Amino acid sequence: MSGSVIGKHFTVSTWGESHGAALGVVIDGCPAGLSLCEADIQPYMDRRKPGQSDYTTKRREADDIRILSGVFEGKTTGTPISLILYNEDHRSADYSVLADAYRPGHADLAYDQKYGFRDYRGGGRSSGRETAARVASGAVAGKLLKEFGISCRAYTRSIGPVSITSYDEEERLKNSLYMPDASACEKAEAYLKEVMAKKDSAGGVIECVISGCPKGLGEPVFDKLSADLAKAVCSIGAVKGFEIGDGFASADTLGSKNNDPLFFKEGGIHTASNHAGGIYGGIANGADILFRAAIKPTPSISQTQDTVTRDGKPIKLEIPGRHDPVIVPRAVVVVESMACLVIADHLIGNMSSRLEGMLAFYHCQP
Amino acid sequence: MSGSVIGKHFTVSTWGESHGAALGVVIDGCPAGLSLCEADIQPYMDRRKPGQSDYTTKRREADDIRILSGVFEGKTTGTPISLILYNEDHRSADYSVLADAYRPGHADLAYDQKYGFRDYRGGGRSSGRETAARVASGAVAGKLLKEFGISCRAYTRSIGPVSITSYDEEERLKNSLYMPDASACEKAEAYLKEVMAKKDSAGGVIECVISGCPKGLGEPVFDKLSADLAKAVCSIGAVKGFEIGDGFASADTLGSKNNDPLFFKEGGIHTASNHAGGIYGGIANGADILFRAAIKPTPSISQTQDTVTRDGKPIKLEIPGRHDPVIVPRAVVVVESMACLVIADHLIGNMSSRLEGMLAFYHCQP
Amino acid sequence: MSGSVIGKHFTVSTWGESHGAALGVVIDGCPAGLSLCEADIQPYMDRRKPGQSDYTTKRREADDIRILSGVFEGKTTGTPISLILYNEDHRSADYSVLADAYRPGHADLAYDQKYGFRDYRGGGRSSGRETAARVASGAVAGKLLKEFGISCRAYTRSIGPVSITSYDEEERLKNSLYMPDASACEKAEAYLKEVMAKKDSAGGVIECVISGCPKGLGEPVFDKLSADLAKAVCSIGAVKGFEIGDGFASADTLGSKNNDPLFFKEGGIHTASNHAGGIYGGIANGADILFRAAIKPTPSISQTQDTVTRDGKPIKLEIPGRHDPVIVPRAVVVVESMACLVIADHLIGNMSSRLEGMLAFYHCQP
Amino acid sequence: MSGSVIGKHFTVSTWGESHGAALGVVIDGCPAGLSLCEADIQPYMDRRKPGQSDYTTKRREADDIRILSGVFEGKTTGTPISLILYNEDHRSADYSVLADAYRPGHADLAYDQKYGFRDYRGGGRSSGRETAARVASGAVAGKLLKEFGISCRAYTRSIGPVSITSYDEEERLKNSLYMPDASACEKAEAYLKEVMAKKDSAGGVIECVISGCPKGLGEPVFDKLSADLAKAVCSIGAVKGFEIGDGFASADTLGSKNNDPLFFKEGGIHTASNHAGGIYGGIANGADILFRAAIKPTPSISQTQDTVTRDGKPIKLEIPGRHDPVIVPRAVVVVESMACLVIADHLIGNMSSRLEGMLAFYHCQP
Repeated sequence: MSGSVIGKHFTVSTWGESHGAALGVVIDGCPAGLSLCEADIQPYMDRRKPGQSDYTTKRREADDIRILSGVFEGKTTGTPISLILYNEDHRSADYSVLADAYRPGHADLAYDQKYGFRDYRGGGRSSGRETAARVASGAVAGKLLKEFGISCRAYTRSIGPVSITSYDEEERLKNSLYMPDASACEKAEAYLKEVMAKKDSAGGVIECVISGCPKGLGEPVFDKLSADLAKAVCSIGAVKGFEIGDGFASADTLGSKNNDPLFFKEGGIHTASNHAGGIYGGIANGADILFRAAIKPTPSISQTQDTVTRDGKPIKLEIPGRHDPVIVPRAVVVVESMACLVIADHLIGNMSSRLEGMLAFYHCQP
Repeated sequence: MSGSVIGKHFTVSTWGESHGAALGVVIDGCPAGLSLCEADIQPYMDRRKPGQSDYTTKRREADDIRILSGVFEGKTTGTPISLILYNEDHRSADYSVLADAYRPGHADLAYDQKYGFRDYRGGGRSSGRETAARVASGAVAGKLLKEFGISCRAYTRSIGPVSITSYDEEERLKNSLYMPDASACEKAEAYLKEVMAKKDSAGGVIECVISGCPKGLGEPVFDKLSADLAKAVCSIGAVKGFEIGDGFASADTLGSKNNDPLFFKEGGIHTASNHAGGIYGGIANGADILFRAAIKPTPSISQTQDTVTRDGKPIKLEIPGRHDPVIVPRAVVVVESMACLVIADHLIGNMSSRLEGMLAFYHCQP
Repeated sequence: MSGSVIGKHFTVSTWGESHGAALGVVIDGCPAGLSLCEADIQPYMDRRKPGQSDYTTKRREADDIRILSGVFEGKTTGTPISLILYNEDHRSADYSVLADAYRPGHADLAYDQKYGFRDYRGGGRSSGRETAARVASGAVAGKLLKEFGISCRAYTRSIGPVSITSYDEEERLKNSLYMPDASACEKAEAYLKEVMAKKDSAGGVIECVISGCPKGLGEPVFDKLSADLAKAVCSIGAVKGFEIGDGFASADTLGSKNNDPLFFKEGGIHTASNHAGGIYGGIANGADILFRAAIKPTPSISQTQDTVTRDGKPIKLEIPGRHDPVIVPRAVVVVESMACLVIADHLIGNMSSRLEGMLAFYHCQP
Repeated sequence: MSGSVIGKHFTVSTWGESHGAALGVVIDGCPAGLSLCEADIQPYMDRRKPGQSDYTTKRREADDIRILSGVFEGKTTGTPISLILYNEDHRSADYSVLADAYRPGHADLAYDQKYGFRDYRGGGRSSGRETAARVASGAVAGKLLKEFGISCRAYTRSIGPVSITSYDEEERLKNSLYMPDASACEKAEAYLKEVMAKKDSAGGVIECVISGCPKGLGEPVFDKLSADLAKAVCSIGAVKGFEIGDGFASADTLGSKNNDPLFFKEGGIHTASNHAGGIYGGIANGADILFRAAIKPTPSISQTQDTVTRDGKPIKLEIPGRHDPVIVPRAVVVVESMACLVIADHLIGNMSSRLEGMLAFYHCQP
């Protein structure tokens, strides 16, 4: 079954394996007239790229994005935008041990169970490299959102036990762990060094804030904005949990504390607090949207692990290559990209919620 | 925009407001030949019904389900199944105060912002009553899954600070809070009495275990089984968080501990632990699928609350009617229903993952 | 598989069998604020109703439409609109002979082949009665289109060999055959009397003109406006052909004659002829959209026919009940309804084709 | 809005402009385990390629297909298959006159009206070159269908007034016009020479026969097999009409003649004639499926034509480059490809029509 297409209006179709010739994405439904060139997308790719610090894998990946269609004279034409990343020539031989062995914590076994066999080179389609196509399309969605004054900002909230305790926007995209709190970053780096010394790996939590989102986005009752964010974020391989606003904490509070009081100011009604995370009944209410994603520790570790081969024989496995001790920093831009895709999709979907809005739209057309 | 349709294959379209003439659901894509009658569905409806205990609202709702189409001589025909619940004659006047006032913690304001006005009677479409249609269709999906030996069992894991510490299947559907731990239930009831005395409300966590799910369900990379569960569960109004397997706890552990070791037994490969919650790379691996949903405290409380009218004027609001001090017990069957819908959808979707499976299917057709 | 849902934005889900308790439709995606009541829909239902003339079946059907949700104080709320038609109590016994026999020209055999069995009463889901739900939703779409100055007008172009030779709008909805040419109608009636005398049935061609459609509707390359009209119209059971503009005649002309010349007038560019039928490259160009549907003769005839039973035994079949000698007049409003659904869907879809249009829309929101 | 994605299960997303860097298609939902390499696809591409005869344009196009993903060690992996065609370096300057002028019979004006501007080089996205991506994916679908013994065979039925009068399978793919009747081909060539001498162009009719299609394919009531074929075929730019079985001829016959009588032979029930074209009630009944598409004359002709510029100024336009005097022969494989895509999609969709089929499927899984 088709499963690599997401979005009803701003529709994204990704393809590609870790060690194939290339990977990419087709965006169908981007409005015409948006300025777009490779330089708009590349910075997003670079945030995901390995080798940025001591805490990401030393592997080199060719992440030079190319636009193959849908842009003419610097502007989107309204037709499908095809983006491609060519893979460098990999020495696939390195991965031959994985043809037979199932890596614990990976999808190797699941792919074999579903499809009968798999492209085992670097994880094939289940590789984290798949997320590069998400980021490429997320960058286009982000460019679109900017035109409407909407920003999505994701960052590392915690690495293992180390959480941020303050928020510094300047720090957010600067340090090696994309933590908007320099002091927490320092502690997290110390923690990661310990983990790496044990040939182990760590997880963490990514948080994302969406500002400037128009009121009204989100479609009850199933395509709630929160539900579509949950799906988009939980479709990232390493994500094990999602929460919006106060999330799991709201399960252990009281209604009188959890309800956001309403008040009137400057021509509009606002919430005095934001326990809900900017969404009520699945509909954005104009406040900042805030959600979090739990990221599991990198499954590839340098320790020898007990596992089995395709035939069920027990073996000791040492996974070849170098591994990210933590996925979180590189996943920050992936989470942000998924948020951009969802908001862009709903920005379009919401345009038909009222007859009067539709009439105004068509009456002012040329 | 359309937002009340869910499922690609087992497609469900719900409709209806709290105080309209009726509410219901159309199921399109249920295979022909499934035995089905109202008595298969009614027990699910009864689990959601108010007035079951001291801890649910005393409101009475007519939840007698009727099948209007798609069943002939006791079996589904493969054509759309229409299910309807007629609403009792409500004294809508009771709700007139809500025509102007926005209830804190509710979607009243958001609906007005999106649509320009709203059916304010009992929350209209944003009422929890909407979930009755989910449960009706979930019961049909659950009946289908039973044929394949698949069961979805949801239960209350915690109410406020009180969590279960053991699991007793017999207790699960027996007590007033749907907690599979009689002693925790007792403590939770005591907690709720305190909350009710303060005219306040509580939240909690619902857990769901899916057993017998065939290996291979789930479609990478976006329609992962976990991602579709996340969306379905987070589309329930009161849900603020979702986690699968170890969820947020996995963010603060080590890779060596989080990876589920593989071993061979009785002709198959299994995981020795289940930190992943039965899904790898978005694909079910045959182990129990386990997820949790965070439910916020009931927003309708008996305390007087500060809020504003549609014109922005501040008022003191006392919400008329009786309220559930906690939504969790009635939401258990809603969560379970959404799980059933997702698994039924993927059960169908997975049938085309391999050419050899498709060939075998068509070669044995009459 | 789900197959009774149509429309990406103005999404329609129909259900119901000929002799079930009721049949109906759920419309999801209709914008809020449209005035709507049963009286807006009923006239459409009446155009489809049997028993209107000597040339339609004498069967009586209860086609009193009811709105069950999605409308509050006379206006659509933006949430799903559920429409229902209760079936009268049928003497199902009349149809018992059809439990075993396959009627030639009907879908009886095909349903058994696909689903293993079928609701044989009056054709079940494959009955022409299914189209009542299309008409009910088409009426809502038509009401929406009227707000934008768009009209869809279908009519009988020919019955058997008798075609219209002139167009009189007043006549269109007046005569027994919905032919906009009184003299052709007279000839067609004479032809039908002959056909009826032979216990036989006739077919014909329905034409539809859509005026006032905004330029730009239609989404290349697959969701062309013409392609979606083709699908919607060909999904009507009795339709065997579809053509747009000059249709099949354009296959035997020359490019120099078939191209519509362009000229400038009153601030816009227009086509001097309309061989294309108002759509170029799948996109409406502002001219009238014109298409035709070929309708086969009613398969139920009063002659005794040779056929087989479910076991393959040859039998002589006399189909019980009274039959339409021609379906065309009653199908006119069905074709028109499908056109309304497609245009409403694309009216919404087209709103995001340009960035500047989207920006203007959001900048003028309250 | 997204409009370049087709298929619910075997989902195809095309992209690319006539004069962009490349064009291609992503196939999502092809089952794993299908043998596939470029050599399986190339012959389909070659049937569409220009320059094959005197009756196709002399333009050269680089139609060397490349597989970028979804195939590993010669077999499909179940993940998205990305196919790409690089465009040769075009001298775009040739087309500069078209930046301002609207070609009659083309979508130039419609694209400007919808999107505000367009990629005018060679028609951009509205170019016939777009169909190369359809053919590439159709070839993959055709390879899949072959495994099930299903064949789709399209051919030229008529060019202008010249129709085939016999059917010779060997001739079908041999002659310059893809006519399965050598003598008709000769006459059609003579007709085309006349047309070319007048600097004009011709149209024609393409017919397609699908054999070996399993009974049961097609999903009532909207996703009828016939309706989905109608949409797929009418989405090809030059198609102006579609008919199935006897098509428009059935509008002028009698029910007694149009009904296909049923009889029993060799363990199954068959139709003695095939006026319906192999589909009843939208469901394939096992007989050959037969449909036709009307193709308009090539809009680009060598005559000077009257038209207007973007500013509405009248001009005399001579379209640069060489033109196909008739599109029909090159469109044959495009029609066939769309048929393959639809049948592949429904082959998957039909697998869940019966509970017993689904149970058998899952019980025989490893």
